[in-house]
Amino acid sequence: MTVSVKQYLKDNREQNLERLKRFLAIPSVSTTSSHKEDVLKAGEFVRDYLNEIGFEKVNLEETGGHPLVYAEWMGAEGAPTALFYGHYDVQPAEPLELWDSEPFQAEVRDERIFARGASDDKGQVFMHLAVFEAFMKTQGALPINVKVIIEGEEEIGSENLNPYLKNNLEKLAADFALVSDSGMVETGQPTMLYGLKGFTGLEVTLRGAKRDLHSGLYGGAVKNPAMALSQLLAGMKNEHEKVLIEGFYDGIEELDQEERDLMNAAPGEDYTRSLDIPETTPEDGFTVNEHLMARPTFEVNGIFGGYQGEGTKTIIPSEATAKLTCRLVPGQDPMIIQDLLVKHIEKHVPKGVHVSVKREPLSAKAYKVDPAHPLIQSAAESLSAAFGKETVFVRLGGSIPVVESFDQLFGIPVILLGFGTPEDNLHAPNESFPVNHFDLGMEVLVDYYAKAAKLN
Amino acid sequence: MTVSVKQYLKDNREQNLERLKRFLAIPSVSTTSSHKEDVLKAGEFVRDYLNEIGFEKVNLEETGGHPLVYAEWMGAEGAPTALFYGHYDVQPAEPLELWDSEPFQAEVRDERIFARGASDDKGQVFMHLAVFEAFMKTQGALPINVKVIIEGEEEIGSENLNPYLKNNLEKLAADFALVSDSGMVETGQPTMLYGLKGFTGLEVTLRGAKRDLHSGLYGGAVKNPAMALSQLLAGMKNEHEKVLIEGFYDGIEELDQEERDLMNAAPGEDYTRSLDIPETTPEDGFTVNEHLMARPTFEVNGIFGGYQGEGTKTIIPSEATAKLTCRLVPGQDPMIIQDLLVKHIEKHVPKGVHVSVKREPLSAKAYKVDPAHPLIQSAAESLSAAFGKETVFVRLGGSIPVVESFDQLFGIPVILLGFGTPEDNLHAPNESFPVNHFDLGMEVLVDYYAKAAKLN
Repeated sequence: MTVSVKQYLKDNREQNLERLKRFLAIPSVSTTSSHKEDVLKAGEFVRDYLNEIGFEKVNLEETGGHPLVYAEWMGAEGAPTALFYGHYDVQPAEPLELWDSEPFQAEVRDERIFARGASDDKGQVFMHLAVFEAFMKTQGALPINVKVIIEGEEEIGSENLNPYLKNNLEKLAADFALVSDSGMVETGQPTMLYGLKGFTGLEVTLRGAKRDLHSGLYGGAVKNPAMALSQLLAGMKNEHEKVLIEGFYDGIEELDQEERDLMNAAPGEDYTRSLDIPETTPEDGFTVNEHLMARPTFEVNGIFGGYQGEGTKTIIPSEATAKLTCRLVPGQDPMIIQDLLVKHIEKHVPKGVHVSVKREPLSAKAYKVDPAHPLIQSAAESLSAAFGKETVFVRLGGSIPVVESFDQLFGIPVILLGFGTPEDNLHAPNESFPVNHFDLGMEVLVDYYAKAAKLN
Repeated sequence: MTVSVKQYLKDNREQNLERLKRFLAIPSVSTTSSHKEDVLKAGEFVRDYLNEIGFEKVNLEETGGHPLVYAEWMGAEGAPTALFYGHYDVQPAEPLELWDSEPFQAEVRDERIFARGASDDKGQVFMHLAVFEAFMKTQGALPINVKVIIEGEEEIGSENLNPYLKNNLEKLAADFALVSDSGMVETGQPTMLYGLKGFTGLEVTLRGAKRDLHSGLYGGAVKNPAMALSQLLAGMKNEHEKVLIEGFYDGIEELDQEERDLMNAAPGEDYTRSLDIPETTPEDGFTVNEHLMARPTFEVNGIFGGYQGEGTKTIIPSEATAKLTCRLVPGQDPMIIQDLLVKHIEKHVPKGVHVSVKREPLSAKAYKVDPAHPLIQSAAESLSAAFGKETVFVRLGGSIPVVESFDQLFGIPVILLGFGTPEDNLHAPNESFPVNHFDLGMEVLVDYYAKAAKLN
């Protein structure tokens, strides 16, 4: 059965590429109000395509901001239902002079499609749509039920997505979610992303005297807030990269040897070369891959206080500030971790300074699906088969907010089938996407949609 | 004998105030090239006055920059020779709109003389000149030999002073130096300043990756330079304000109880109120006054790295920098201390980051004269007598470069007879000087010059 679907995709390859180029030609830059009409046009492109394929209830849904496209095909009785998510908006193309070809005039060269959105996320959204079309044209049906939401505000924070999801829990109910808005660890290296980190943060300011002081006239009488901040921060992480916040690691699941092996099998960058660092410094007892993927982190994102100009100014700064964020793993609740941070700061602030804390209002919970889950294993098999290479299993240190939303609101597994590569230049000039990832990715999807039908 | 000198000053009080006002009326702003002629005029004012008094070898000496006035009176055979230093240049008056009267049109109100330079240093220089005149007019001689250097570049760093001193060691040879360019701890509180701190510093930068990194994608692999810097700094001073640099305190003289008592007798500010700090934090085992005056300090003058804007940016900064300076006490060599700092940094820099150090080229040695020295005791007696209050003995946390130069080049005691007050607004709008400090200060000088004659 799938042969003919795949054959259809081969037969229509040029046509699909041309249609993708038309999609990429719409400058649907959601961050820029002057592109409002273009964003809408891209939404209409998706809507019209889904109508043409034969989806039902196809609609540009009002959200208060840019609309999102909803559509569903529920004809696979007894088969599971997938909720497919993607976005049709893109980042600005500026600075334009750094592009080697027009950002909204896709060009294929060096076996890549160059255009804003080629990888993030129009290209990947389009692959699903083309696969849906191929199924419908050759089989008259999809192997599973599919609900589609393609939003137009991902690049501006998806502000209206969560309210929409919450208001449509029943309508959007599905057995699993499918997101293609991520990438592989290397070009051509099939990658199964089965976990993401959560996030919390805060800003701490220590204030000494109400103004900067002459270090000669006051040095010895007052606490130096920059030193106080250093002492406070140094008490929050030791030289073995262990976070010293009481309770920070509580409730985190042990990393078993099987999963460690899985992570360590993923190819690693030679960071000392690529980043020009003297050595890597993972947490004591863990490899770099293990820490990157499965251990929480605590980072100073910024620190500042006192004189920053040329030369010397002999002051005792009035205040010093640090911006702190943590990446969290399953078992850590972002709100509880933030509380622990605040408690630690209040308990350990050196004497002689006033302390104030600004809590970061945004947070995210970590997400993880069991790598042995049949939906994950099937995806990995489809990836390995199409790319002719064993799939690696990785967890990512970053967050993808929509994944957390699906996890929290629907409690369903989220399958991250990402086809991008580290060389795609996301959000940068010369964004591109490998042509063969376009071809092979669609093979994966054909295979995976068919496999998913049997997993109910 | 001194009665008639003092009487002469009383009789000529208005005349002297008028002459001082003419001196203050010359906008001798050395920092501003458009005032070059005015700076010269102020030098000529001093030169002409010294000529009129009867000084010899009076000359505007070329220095490469603004000239300095040299003059001498060597007629007191067998008596000691004083080297009197002051400066006739002033800070800019800007912002002019914050002055309540014209900065270069001296006005007496609220028992203070308001004008740029009233306290720093024209007013204090003038007091010596008027006293010299009084001695010459009434006695036909000064009680001691006096060599005078009044420079025109103090407010721009005295760049040409040291070369001049070095080239004229013999000509300037004296038994002690006299500097009136400082102040008292409180208005009306006679103060004997018998020590100054030295100074050294450096800037340290820790670099991790060659660019800022996404904290989700790299957190756990690389050392955070802002955290590394905090750990490094926290290892340089403990929570009891003890500097942990190996060898930092070596060679510092013990503070005996007598000197502690002297320092603790000086009035102290209520810092928690005046600076709005929760508490003072002197070094363990020392009072605030003791630390301020006689113990070295180690301060972070500035710290910066990573994101400083609004909200959160989840990066691992590429680098972080701290600007560090120490105030030093007798027994500490600034160059050796700088070496110790560098050694400590190189030894203790956390792994995973590159370190670079920029040494501050300027430095100063601490200065101290034995408070029991007869020249100090006599000065204190003259101060107590004129102001009708017991003189307090203090050491200052700051440096006065000319004092270090006199100490290093001539090896003579430097007597700091300062008549300024904390309310003088030095370098700020509405600079002023108490009229009675002008009167009483001249009484002190008459008394002191007479006393010094007997101290050979």
